[in-house]
Amino acid sequence: MTSIMPTQRLRGETTLVGDMQPVSASTSSIEQLDTPALLLDETRMSRNIARLRGGLAGLGVNLRPHLKTPKSLEIARRVMDGPAGPAAVSTLREAEQLAEGGVRDLLYAVGIAPGKLERVSALRRRGVELSVVVDSLDAAIAVAKQSRISRDPIPTLIEIDSDGHRAGVRRELAGQLVSIGRVLHDGGAQLRGVMTHAGESYACDSVEAIGAIAERERSEAVACAALLRDAGLPAPVVSVGSTPTAHFARDLSGVTEVRAGVFVFFDLVMAGLDVCTVDDIALSVLATVIGHQPDKGWIVVDAGWMAMSRDRGTASQKLDQGYGVVCDVDGVPYPDLIMARANQEQGILALRDGSAAQLPHLPIGSLVRVLPNHACPTAAQHDHYTVVQSGSREIVGQWSRFRGW
Amino acid sequence: MTSIMPTQRLRGETTLVGDMQPVSASTSSIEQLDTPALLLDETRMSRNIARLRGGLAGLGVNLRPHLKTPKSLEIARRVMDGPAGPAAVSTLREAEQLAEGGVRDLLYAVGIAPGKLERVSALRRRGVELSVVVDSLDAAIAVAKQSRISRDPIPTLIEIDSDGHRAGVRRELAGQLVSIGRVLHDGGAQLRGVMTHAGESYACDSVEAIGAIAERERSEAVACAALLRDAGLPAPVVSVGSTPTAHFARDLSGVTEVRAGVFVFFDLVMAGLDVCTVDDIALSVLATVIGHQPDKGWIVVDAGWMAMSRDRGTASQKLDQGYGVVCDVDGVPYPDLIMARANQEQGILALRDGSAAQLPHLPIGSLVRVLPNHACPTAAQHDHYTVVQSGSREIVGQWSRFRGW
Repeated sequence: MTSIMPTQRLRGETTLVGDMQPVSASTSSIEQLDTPALLLDETRMSRNIARLRGGLAGLGVNLRPHLKTPKSLEIARRVMDGPAGPAAVSTLREAEQLAEGGVRDLLYAVGIAPGKLERVSALRRRGVELSVVVDSLDAAIAVAKQSRISRDPIPTLIEIDSDGHRAGVRRELAGQLVSIGRVLHDGGAQLRGVMTHAGESYACDSVEAIGAIAERERSEAVACAALLRDAGLPAPVVSVGSTPTAHFARDLSGVTEVRAGVFVFFDLVMAGLDVCTVDDIALSVLATVIGHQPDKGWIVVDAGWMAMSRDRGTASQKLDQGYGVVCDVDGVPYPDLIMARANQEQGILALRDGSAAQLPHLPIGSLVRVLPNHACPTAAQHDHYTVVQSGSREIVGQWSRFRGW
Repeated sequence: MTSIMPTQRLRGETTLVGDMQPVSASTSSIEQLDTPALLLDETRMSRNIARLRGGLAGLGVNLRPHLKTPKSLEIARRVMDGPAGPAAVSTLREAEQLAEGGVRDLLYAVGIAPGKLERVSALRRRGVELSVVVDSLDAAIAVAKQSRISRDPIPTLIEIDSDGHRAGVRRELAGQLVSIGRVLHDGGAQLRGVMTHAGESYACDSVEAIGAIAERERSEAVACAALLRDAGLPAPVVSVGSTPTAHFARDLSGVTEVRAGVFVFFDLVMAGLDVCTVDDIALSVLATVIGHQPDKGWIVVDAGWMAMSRDRGTASQKLDQGYGVVCDVDGVPYPDLIMARANQEQGILALRDGSAAQLPHLPIGSLVRVLPNHACPTAAQHDHYTVVQSGSREIVGQWSRFRGW
């Protein structure tokens, strides 16, 4: 099951793209990797997955993992109910790649552009139960038309705006909601219900606040499904979710599935929200020390924003973590050491302002791991995961990532 | 010369990765592209290249273009003196890919990690005149050792810190500078001189301030080269550069080459510094309208931060451009319309705060182009450029990008 192509180059290997060899997983260590490299702690990931699955099972709701975070067939297989799904995706490219790997139940969870509908139909002709999302009459008309042209009723959810954060129909606009539903249902599409995403949960300052947003996410979605049903329209699916609300919802009555993505890895933004601890973060970037500026208290490494991404999600939280929290090669954080600044291929490590800690002794060539602000953009800077277990430097797998649209 | 693999998928094409077909460039339009897609206006790029080359020729200095921005062999060939170079790179992967394309004179312009030296030697054995950078005794010792082991004196520049912005030796530490030079020269490496990068120029608020930083960049580098020469060490190369200082240096006496990268495309950060105008920006992301939130004044498109990157470089400038300036499909900016917010695969277009402009009428399915804050990270989110000429929607090329380390 373990995909080992394309591989991370081992240090000293000099082959060019196109003739890279798989690493011999049983004999290699992360100390042999060329840096920067994206590391995945599988032990932590498995624990994170088990935690959310357990929580949702207790609430009697199914998980539809959002694969926009891992973008990996290997991880999909570890987080889905079974090899066929279900799962959510953020691009049709993800759907196509997962379909190649045997996944059959997919929700493309971004409002559909009419020009993408032929790709949707093509996937459906290949046996993929792919559903789409609309939040306007124009998009509904386009989906209905494509359903008729392709003689295939495309399953469609109506996006609900439960918190003013991005797209979707607000519950107060019941007439619009029902009109969209009717265009789909009467026009030849397969109206499946509603979906919403509580994006506002990322801005909470307590788990109580997250719990309140989770309840609003649930109640708005359930109410909108009821509006459709009251109008005589089908709405078997009520899909909600964000990683914070998925973990702190106390009641999911009326919800049929929860979507969440970043929970697989967690990150510093989630730790800042108290959704997880720093020790739960399964993703890190391995970097090598390449210089020092002792008068400034800086250690320079060969991972900059190209390896970390430009995401600075913790900048608006109580504890700004810079471009990431710096750990030793085994993943143990150094006290108060963060990546304070980043150039394209250089990261500048420094103690937090006001820290009484000592800068660690890290000679040139030393390895560190840097935990990311936001797992999704950091992972997207890399083509594959190098997989390790907690407390070990041994490479146990190389899993490739999807990319593009 | 035009590489057309891998291609951008045309809308409606349904092939999977691995069996994509090249587009028929003569008959296709950007209106047929799947979105989001990275567009390159070749007319503007050629003008930008001619401008800098002309300016540097007037100052009697050579250009060593930094290919960390374009990461493309096609663009390398348009910006270098000739097919063999010279050029600078930010990763060894770039060097390896360019070497495959025939480039022979390369500077790896990031402080070398000792573990990467075997890859450097391997490229040099293939006939690539690859030079490296150090700013410490430890790194110099490692380069000298590798030079002896490989029986190949590795050409090496000492990085100078001309503005306290990142790595490098400060001029005041003349003893350290000379010691590093001596370790290289006496130890078997090929000491070539000094290099510096005026990163502080990105924080200037006037072209006069950029000019002053350019002069400091020049004078510090020249002075450090003189310190080496005064100690009896060779320093034939004095390499400076950043896109702002390269455009506003008034005198480059003593400098032998200028490095610059982002000038090829320019971006909103450069426009905010008055290094270019918005109409010079050659790079944009093509996106499709997928929804509206009329009560909020929002237009939602299918390009979010995955397509734009998380870079918000203009946030610290006088005019915050959000995630980008929004133009019509032909590249003409709409008054005051910016991408105000971005989710992973959704961008929210809105008028600037306080604008008296009208939100344009952009029905679902409409195409827009979004100009980026920072060309380097935005381009890095994409695997290739779709090339057009100014004022035309016809696709004239598909150029692939390098990626990874």
